[in-house]
Amino acid sequence: MDRLVLHEDSRSGNCYKIRLTAALLGLPLECIDYDILRGETRTPAFLQNVNANGRIPVLQIGDRFLPESNAACWYLAEGSYLVPENRFDRADMLRWMFFEQYSHEPNIATLRFWLHFVGEAKLNEYQRSQIMPKRAGGEAALALMEEQLGQQDWLVGTSVTLADVALYAYTHVCEAGGFRLHDYPAVCAWLRRVAALRGYVPMCS
Amino acid sequence: MDRLVLHEDSRSGNCYKIRLTAALLGLPLECIDYDILRGETRTPAFLQNVNANGRIPVLQIGDRFLPESNAACWYLAEGSYLVPENRFDRADMLRWMFFEQYSHEPNIATLRFWLHFVGEAKLNEYQRSQIMPKRAGGEAALALMEEQLGQQDWLVGTSVTLADVALYAYTHVCEAGGFRLHDYPAVCAWLRRVAALRGYVPMCS
Repeated sequence: MDRLVLHEDSRSGNCYKIRLTAALLGLPLECIDYDILRGETRTPAFLQNVNANGRIPVLQIGDRFLPESNAACWYLAEGSYLVPENRFDRADMLRWMFFEQYSHEPNIATLRFWLHFVGEAKLNEYQRSQIMPKRAGGEAALALMEEQLGQQDWLVGTSVTLADVALYAYTHVCEAGGFRLHDYPAVCAWLRRVAALRGYVPMCS
Repeated sequence: MDRLVLHEDSRSGNCYKIRLTAALLGLPLECIDYDILRGETRTPAFLQNVNANGRIPVLQIGDRFLPESNAACWYLAEGSYLVPENRFDRADMLRWMFFEQYSHEPNIATLRFWLHFVGEAKLNEYQRSQIMPKRAGGEAALALMEEQLGQQDWLVGTSVTLADVALYAYTHVCEAGGFRLHDYPAVCAWLRRVAALRGYVPMCS
């Protein structure tokens, strides 16, 4: 495989997903850190060379650049034990990864960013108006995971997949955004299963 | 392949993506229509039997159910000409599909739904406060597509992929949400290329 470089902010769960995927698979990954709070991903050099979208993470593969965390995880894991061999299960894994980006991350990760990193006192009026809807959206996402994980150990099939890696990233730190993990016992048991995986690395090393 | 049934609201671009994928591939697809404005996807029967998330589309494959539009498109198209054979390109296709769900659909589809189907007069204060941010987010998404499509005919590689199908769905009707397509000439040319594909079907039949 080509040289792999992760352009990241190590506090970001979207970046951590990619590091965790690489660690579980034993893939070497270089990391270049940017401070998103200081706008380091909005510089002309970053926009021109790394991602015109101004966002991290971006996985660099040789001289090509791949934005979007879950696409990067897919690139690393395709053909490995983290992607199911069964056609339905493979699509169902992507289903949970799209759910993560649509229904989970915009609520749970955003509240963590606002409340833990920016600070509630510094939020503008529009951001404040979104706290309650994002709280409700995040609770609904956690409730759906609780329902699924009350029935099976892993989100898809009978073993760990990228769906678990993708959803673990922001779920295991959701309390920084004001969510209460003890309301979701099946989710908590699943978090412990992920953390016990061979090759697991924590979010902040 | 098992019997394929699409649980949909035919006005939804997320549902149309799946119909368009099936049409391009010549796959038979039965459709069951629900009216989301009347809450027909929030009934106990729907929540129990089709999707606990209360959302459409859901692709039924035999007796299994697959939510999330882009996962359903993936299920139908895997192994076909709509999914690139090259590993980087396959991940890059998913990159645009995650971008679609994170940066495009929540802005462009939501404004279409609010302004065209619900009606601005019926929006609540919170929804009104989101019109300007969603307008800016949608313009940024269209600008990123314009930049890419100014350089190449298709979003990924040299031929049509699911990335084009996924992003076509809400882009080609974005004017119903107040966006102006003539600001994006490369996007307009690409829309015409998609509509000229063999097997293409329009959104409302």
